[in-house]
Amino acid sequence: MIRTALFASAAIAALASVPASADEGMWTLDAFPAERMRADYGWAPDQAWLDKVRGGAVRLTGGCSASFVSPQGLILTNHHCIATCLADNSSEAKDYLNDGFVSSRREDELKCPGQQAEVVTAITDVTSRIKGAMGSLTGEALTKARDAEIAAIEKAGCTDLKTTRCQVVTLFGGGQYKLYTYRKYSDVRLAWAPEDRAATFGGDPDNFNFPRYSMDASFLRAYEDGKPVASPQFLKWNPRPPVKGEATFVVGNPGSTSRLWTGSQLAFEREVRLPVTLATLSELRGRVIRAMQESPTKEREGLDTLNGIENSLKVFIGRTKALNDPAFTGKLSAAEADLRAKSAGNAAIGDPWTTVDGAMSAYRSLYLPLRFTQPSSDLLGYAQTLVFAAQEREKDNSERLPGYTDSRLPLLEKQILDERPIHPWLDKLTLEWSLSKAREYLGADDPDTKLLLGKASPEGLTESLVNGTKLADPAVRKALWDGGMKAIKASEDPMIVYALRLADRQRELRKLTDAQYSGPLAIAGSQLSDARFAAYGDTLYPDATFTLRISYGKVAGWTERGNEVPYETTMGGTFDRATGNAPYDAAGGFVAAKAKIDPNATYNFVTTNDIIGGNSGSPVIDRAGTVIGAAFDGNIHSLGGNYGYDGTLNRTVVVSTDAVQEALEKIYPAPALVKELSGKK
Amino acid sequence: MIRTALFASAAIAALASVPASADEGMWTLDAFPAERMRADYGWAPDQAWLDKVRGGAVRLTGGCSASFVSPQGLILTNHHCIATCLADNSSEAKDYLNDGFVSSRREDELKCPGQQAEVVTAITDVTSRIKGAMGSLTGEALTKARDAEIAAIEKAGCTDLKTTRCQVVTLFGGGQYKLYTYRKYSDVRLAWAPEDRAATFGGDPDNFNFPRYSMDASFLRAYEDGKPVASPQFLKWNPRPPVKGEATFVVGNPGSTSRLWTGSQLAFEREVRLPVTLATLSELRGRVIRAMQESPTKEREGLDTLNGIENSLKVFIGRTKALNDPAFTGKLSAAEADLRAKSAGNAAIGDPWTTVDGAMSAYRSLYLPLRFTQPSSDLLGYAQTLVFAAQEREKDNSERLPGYTDSRLPLLEKQILDERPIHPWLDKLTLEWSLSKAREYLGADDPDTKLLLGKASPEGLTESLVNGTKLADPAVRKALWDGGMKAIKASEDPMIVYALRLADRQRELRKLTDAQYSGPLAIAGSQLSDARFAAYGDTLYPDATFTLRISYGKVAGWTERGNEVPYETTMGGTFDRATGNAPYDAAGGFVAAKAKIDPNATYNFVTTNDIIGGNSGSPVIDRAGTVIGAAFDGNIHSLGGNYGYDGTLNRTVVVSTDAVQEALEKIYPAPALVKELSGKK
Repeated sequence: MIRTALFASAAIAALASVPASADEGMWTLDAFPAERMRADYGWAPDQAWLDKVRGGAVRLTGGCSASFVSPQGLILTNHHCIATCLADNSSEAKDYLNDGFVSSRREDELKCPGQQAEVVTAITDVTSRIKGAMGSLTGEALTKARDAEIAAIEKAGCTDLKTTRCQVVTLFGGGQYKLYTYRKYSDVRLAWAPEDRAATFGGDPDNFNFPRYSMDASFLRAYEDGKPVASPQFLKWNPRPPVKGEATFVVGNPGSTSRLWTGSQLAFEREVRLPVTLATLSELRGRVIRAMQESPTKEREGLDTLNGIENSLKVFIGRTKALNDPAFTGKLSAAEADLRAKSAGNAAIGDPWTTVDGAMSAYRSLYLPLRFTQPSSDLLGYAQTLVFAAQEREKDNSERLPGYTDSRLPLLEKQILDERPIHPWLDKLTLEWSLSKAREYLGADDPDTKLLLGKASPEGLTESLVNGTKLADPAVRKALWDGGMKAIKASEDPMIVYALRLADRQRELRKLTDAQYSGPLAIAGSQLSDARFAAYGDTLYPDATFTLRISYGKVAGWTERGNEVPYETTMGGTFDRATGNAPYDAAGGFVAAKAKIDPNATYNFVTTNDIIGGNSGSPVIDRAGTVIGAAFDGNIHSLGGNYGYDGTLNRTVVVSTDAVQEALEKIYPAPALVKELSGKK
Repeated sequence: MIRTALFASAAIAALASVPASADEGMWTLDAFPAERMRADYGWAPDQAWLDKVRGGAVRLTGGCSASFVSPQGLILTNHHCIATCLADNSSEAKDYLNDGFVSSRREDELKCPGQQAEVVTAITDVTSRIKGAMGSLTGEALTKARDAEIAAIEKAGCTDLKTTRCQVVTLFGGGQYKLYTYRKYSDVRLAWAPEDRAATFGGDPDNFNFPRYSMDASFLRAYEDGKPVASPQFLKWNPRPPVKGEATFVVGNPGSTSRLWTGSQLAFEREVRLPVTLATLSELRGRVIRAMQESPTKEREGLDTLNGIENSLKVFIGRTKALNDPAFTGKLSAAEADLRAKSAGNAAIGDPWTTVDGAMSAYRSLYLPLRFTQPSSDLLGYAQTLVFAAQEREKDNSERLPGYTDSRLPLLEKQILDERPIHPWLDKLTLEWSLSKAREYLGADDPDTKLLLGKASPEGLTESLVNGTKLADPAVRKALWDGGMKAIKASEDPMIVYALRLADRQRELRKLTDAQYSGPLAIAGSQLSDARFAAYGDTLYPDATFTLRISYGKVAGWTERGNEVPYETTMGGTFDRATGNAPYDAAGGFVAAKAKIDPNATYNFVTTNDIIGGNSGSPVIDRAGTVIGAAFDGNIHSLGGNYGYDGTLNRTVVVSTDAVQEALEKIYPAPALVKELSGKK
């Protein structure tokens, strides 16, 4: 599943991008390489086409992409993008995640906690303002000046915080800064979802593989004031099979890429971050797998978390493989050497590589404390956000940490206050795990370990914190949010007390990181961006930043060790692959509807589009601008796509509209949606 | 804990060794570098001293080292070396692992299943015979000829299989072959062990660290015909504190090192084996941790397994760190470059590096199938051994696989037939885990996955195999062992049927490995050994092979980031470090005896001796030849010791006889042992 990786460190900023090869590129919609595409495909979209597509493209704050597919706020995305919503709405009485959700009445559609849908309405270049504010500052002074200017721009850009959101985005690692303005919809509800097994047929073993047989699709609906919103700029639903070789566009929000990290950034990744991540996340996986076997309730409550862990782990294992493949890393080194050679003697560029080396050297010392002084727990996460928000809101907007400025607070508040279930056993499991890993990696005698644990054991501390806190109750969180520092200081809730105990050290580490790592990288990133534009002109796309991009490509299989992998699978193939045993047990709805399902309908297909985690749910659009599928995965080769794209092997995996239409009509019937999608009144 | 790493692949033969730096070296007792030591220490042992020590040194087939410390068969080793014996003897009624074991009467001493004690009685050079048999053969023909000659030498060397064992050992990766003859004692019983928490105080967080406060000591006794054996060649027990700077010798059986692997072997390790191992073993760790929380019984039954997993994982994490440290690997590359330069133009040596590169390239394709077609389960392990033993015993001794020749069968039979408890939940856990990892790493559509699983799920197959088998019953195993192929073929036991289903493929992979990997490495290993002796003369020691070695060094702390780490801890320090919470909760016996314990008695201490997993339990001997401690661990720096020794940082961690004497007298009183150790009648 192309969802954003858990625990992927947002602190590592992508630096810059490389000259793109055929079909490579996650392009911003204001810089589509039309000439380049026309040269390869004999056709390319014009600005009107691009503008229309932009108006229908949706970002989901849960970390996915989507699109409006009707004028009544209906949104197409992946099943795995709304699995958490299904889990949050489930109970002993009704297991929506297992059973799926079909509603014949809009008033029954299910609210999705924490979820918000956003559509880009304007993109404004603010590079000169930001760079002007940074001036010749360095270190923490630089990051403070930059962040204050960003806060001011965002605040001024969006005065109506109820329906708009403003976000300044760093592109090319600091080469460009752009203000993205969004129309936002903070009430998002679930309209249709298949059974979990229909979406996850093949489970973890088939994830990031192809051939696939996955109904990884679902429909949401945006609401406002309790009513479905009008969405006149929707994309037309086109339930047809793909044609081999036809051009396809993926329009969505790739989360992050690291396509032109310098050598020392890649070395840090390979030598430090990935090994720690593989070991610790694998242990968490084992703990959750075993815990889920303890009862049917835990199996239900843990499933969404386990899926997320296994998906992330597969991503990290794929990255480890890529960075341990000398042929792959050789290409990355060659690209760096080429840029260095082309930049030699250009005094304006200087030597950003040495700056990055220094930043990474500092980051190696900061990394473990940074990582392990933020234990994993939803309840502690609430506490930490409440504490930081209260502390930051006492400051002027220009003085706050970036996550707590006026423009950021509305979504934060929504995420804190939305009601969603907390499973204490699961929260204990993750907290106990992360505290024990902190002690293991920092060492029992480390001051940070002592700060985290005192004389307690990870197990004992976890018991007292999770059993003692009341933060699972949204009303308690609201009181603390509204009450600000006074309420926080007066609180005897053990999670709040614990979050306060950690806060000073977390701030100290943040300051050190700004001074020694983020500050230098902002300067080097800008220089590297200049170097790249000087060397390669405007054939460049910025590294992914979970903002709207378009990639072009075509429907095509690939050659795997001499064997052709066909570009599509069929609905009938599900039954051939089914063994009757999980995760290869056909979903009940499929079995029941077998006689009715068209066995030859295209189920999943692959394209050469260049995507990455965050693109999940992106509409796959044909030349006519109609939707023929939803991207939900990459093949196994695409996992190295974080660092570089290989058009001969990397593939996007799509669930076809043809298959979704079959499901809507015959497997999980939703006649109202079928009618709505058809455009008939 | 310096115990041999779980899942460490014995298939990767160490190739050769480097010229030793100060205190470096795991020397064979027939090639002690007396001159070198004398130059540094002003004294060195003579052959009589070495012979005496050899007579008292014991190898434990469980993977540890030890020593006779009385003339009545009393053996000193580590607690962690006999923890499995304690666990195997425990039940709901009596938890020996938790409580420890003290017996006032020899007849109550506890039998240790599968354990055998061995003392070297002769070492004979058989290099010319083996190399003669290999002649100019290559590939599988070479390994067959070599293994047949080894089988013949071992069979002829030991006619009395009840009390002797013969083993041909490959040294210098194929440069030398030596026949080791052992006096063996196959009835080993436990005489004394402290509480688990006394031995494991600080648990996994403190493992491979120092300062330490660990009573990682225990006593076994060798029996024959139901009576303690006479062991006139014992080492004298000397309960005294170590003196800073004094010379120390560690005499034991280091398991394996890889000190001069070529670059392509190290690359395979870093790029393939370690990442797979970190991820899979961490997941197993998580599963076991969580399962142990399900009940006190599971906590007891799983503890020894968890300790083993965590210890191995720490070793692998340490190796990952070492191989990801450019300064460290730079030294290894420089050593290789030096040897290549010194060997250039020597036609007799040829180009073994290219041969190794080819072998490693082949091994990369074979590694995952080899690893994952041998699922982890004690019960399946019994079945696989029974199947292979029956098949192999139908062949002539010279035709058998190395593990099943006449000289190897007695220990194998003992390990199969000894009664020991099997915990079905734990066996299911490991089997389910390893089958699911096989599917993950080989892929769901791989023929080996289909062989392993058919249409079943890992969970379903595991249930039917473990619930259906009767192999937990030693009588059932004995009937199958005695019944040979006829009994195996007639068996309807699902584990036997399953083992038979896997056997052909396992043999096929073995043949491919012999042909493409082991055969070429045997030739290259011999050439590399010749190159090394030509370049560096006889200043070399062979890589570790779990055979008897001696290392010399001294009592010394080290400097850690500018701070001096003292060379010793004291008994009283335990109480300062105790927090009351696991694993820093002082053992009950310590708390009860606190007033009596001498707080200034040396507890643990560190030396510069060069050791590795397998050395656990080795006697630490002073110049007088008396025992002043038992080696039980290395510090964190020693984990890179698999690839290279750094005398400024690598340390051996020892539990002092001074502390053990305190325990024997005051904490877990054993007056009979105190008397026996004192030599008084």
